[in-house]
Amino acid sequence: MPDDSGNTFSMVTCNAPVNIAVIKYWGKRDEECILPINSSLSVTLHQDQLKTTTTVACSRSFQEDRIWLNGKEEDINQPRLQSCLREIRRLARKRRSDGEGGVDLAGLSHKVHICSVNNFPTAAGLASSAAGYACLVYTLARVMGVEGELSAVARQGSGSACRSMYGGFVQWIMGQREDGKDSVAQQVEPETHWPELRILVLVVSAERKPVGSTSGMQTSVETSSLLKHRSDSVVPARMKEMIDAVHRKDFAAFAELTMKDSNQFHAICLDTYPPIFYLNDVSRHIINLVHHYNQHYREARVAYTFDAGPNAVIYTLQQHVDEFLQVVKHFFPPETNGGQFVKGLPVASTTLTEELRQAIGMEPMVKGISYIISTKAGPGPCIVEEPSQHLLGSDGLPKESA
Amino acid sequence: MPDDSGNTFSMVTCNAPVNIAVIKYWGKRDEECILPINSSLSVTLHQDQLKTTTTVACSRSFQEDRIWLNGKEEDINQPRLQSCLREIRRLARKRRSDGEGGVDLAGLSHKVHICSVNNFPTAAGLASSAAGYACLVYTLARVMGVEGELSAVARQGSGSACRSMYGGFVQWIMGQREDGKDSVAQQVEPETHWPELRILVLVVSAERKPVGSTSGMQTSVETSSLLKHRSDSVVPARMKEMIDAVHRKDFAAFAELTMKDSNQFHAICLDTYPPIFYLNDVSRHIINLVHHYNQHYREARVAYTFDAGPNAVIYTLQQHVDEFLQVVKHFFPPETNGGQFVKGLPVASTTLTEELRQAIGMEPMVKGISYIISTKAGPGPCIVEEPSQHLLGSDGLPKESA
Repeated sequence: MPDDSGNTFSMVTCNAPVNIAVIKYWGKRDEECILPINSSLSVTLHQDQLKTTTTVACSRSFQEDRIWLNGKEEDINQPRLQSCLREIRRLARKRRSDGEGGVDLAGLSHKVHICSVNNFPTAAGLASSAAGYACLVYTLARVMGVEGELSAVARQGSGSACRSMYGGFVQWIMGQREDGKDSVAQQVEPETHWPELRILVLVVSAERKPVGSTSGMQTSVETSSLLKHRSDSVVPARMKEMIDAVHRKDFAAFAELTMKDSNQFHAICLDTYPPIFYLNDVSRHIINLVHHYNQHYREARVAYTFDAGPNAVIYTLQQHVDEFLQVVKHFFPPETNGGQFVKGLPVASTTLTEELRQAIGMEPMVKGISYIISTKAGPGPCIVEEPSQHLLGSDGLPKESA
Repeated sequence: MPDDSGNTFSMVTCNAPVNIAVIKYWGKRDEECILPINSSLSVTLHQDQLKTTTTVACSRSFQEDRIWLNGKEEDINQPRLQSCLREIRRLARKRRSDGEGGVDLAGLSHKVHICSVNNFPTAAGLASSAAGYACLVYTLARVMGVEGELSAVARQGSGSACRSMYGGFVQWIMGQREDGKDSVAQQVEPETHWPELRILVLVVSAERKPVGSTSGMQTSVETSSLLKHRSDSVVPARMKEMIDAVHRKDFAAFAELTMKDSNQFHAICLDTYPPIFYLNDVSRHIINLVHHYNQHYREARVAYTFDAGPNAVIYTLQQHVDEFLQVVKHFFPPETNGGQFVKGLPVASTTLTEELRQAIGMEPMVKGISYIISTKAGPGPCIVEEPSQHLLGSDGLPKESA
């Protein structure tokens, strides 16, 4: 790391992943600290397909803290950004006063410049805030020499960001304490545990922006008569079952729980007043397609899950990917716009049998899906060693490409 | 009534109404007797707009029981039809052996011919089975001289049919007994109680037939983790509140509870595995429209409820009907097919203000709604005295017009 004298920078660049919950987080018991009313569990997606990259520079020459997101300067004074900055600085000061920090510690009174970009379209509704805050916290910690458990800090940026602090299969333990110190993420299994697991993100051609998840879950907590029952009675048992299914690599159990929990989350949204809708007719079409496909084979070969938007995330096993993608292409014929319909991990062409087509027996829905990202489970945040990858230039401002 | 000698008939014709629940029935505790897991409450619609007419003829010359529904002979051996027939005959025999029946009692060993028609399109998904079974039971009872509480018999044809045995505001008390004797409908208030209440049936252009409610609710009972909580904890309180709102004619309370309970019913459908979808994008569009409309006026002026299909039933007060229909017409422009868009009770034309249009601020959705039936609360089943209205001719077979 460069030293902190004169006009030079401490500059660090890191990547962090997106995660997709299979047991959903919906509802806070504390809005300020972002403490959830139930535990949750997710799979971390591979950063080759979806990641956030963040560069943090720290210099005595900076006049103020600044942040650029996807090429546009944003307000650094957003409360959640401030929570993360304040918390990392506090940990850094603590570390210094404990005598653990070295000369490589950036000046704690120095201002930071933050630049962050996603390698996937932000408009696609792919829960970029989890990757974004995980990356911010991970990078700030590196710049300021903070080590140890950081998921509780990332949580204060965006609840589900805490799960993006680890690779593989990750649980967010809700915790009991009022200060949230025990509300942390933990790796259940690393990304190498279940290499056959594959993930397909079906980006649905959305028309409108849905209700934001922060205000949505707040309204749910206030008005849904079913939410408390879910958090108190349903989720604890499902967490145990899900962790067990992941340990055993039992895809059928994993798939059924995943679909049931996605459905229940959207049921809670519908039980909210006024109701919140994230699923649309395309989403419902995908859900029916998955059930018909599984029913044809009399086993759960694919599972869907939907977050706060109409996009489907499909979990399946390597051996079913090619065929299932053929099915999706048949029932959601892509627009012939010359673009690539399936991005990411390679897919082999297969032919769809007439028998399977008839067994599914649905009407094809043209233009329902914009494109598909094919990926798998991946690692947690990591540092980018190559200096040319920094998003900030030697002037402390975003490079043109960022 | 004609006597029963020679080749003459006992013939009776009755009308019965459709009812639309505002606290929903979903889930049975006994499939055979059709006993629900929670009480429910409905409004009986006026028969000028929606009714079933049934003629029952009884003659020693008939070789077998037969039934014609909407011009087509159907299988009389359907278990539910048989339940109703058996039960009415049992009550008639009991009455005769008690010495209460007179010479006007039709021969109990005689076979019946039943002919039934709706005055509304059956394909429109307007829960015709409730009106149908209510009318069947009411007419059979008249033919066979059975009096007294009949909702428990109608219930055995189709659960919600028991509520169509009364006019106005009707509750179906779930009951506790295993034989279902205490699972009966009761009038909460007659149809004259709240004359300002108006009802608009928005018939949505449906594409596909949804999952039938019998199999749907069975799957919900088996798989939804939220359903039991709803029936045990949510509905009992809502029934009290709803009855109170009806007594007080408190439209705001009535409206909010109606919408919340419709949403919760559909939430339970979504929490079912595999999930059941009755709402589509048009339904959701209507829901959003209603909330935006109410939010504009800062009071609940209209309320939606949806049964096992995409059609919306709107409750509102007389003074808001004309304007709200203008809003619906604007945001769901009808197909210009020359047909009448609003049928039933007369509607005055008003102009939609630019302010209201902008406050709702949605994109119009062309062809989403086929047509609208404008109606109000109405009376229970009634006998048709005019012999020319019989649906069966002197040969005991359907008249051509039926």
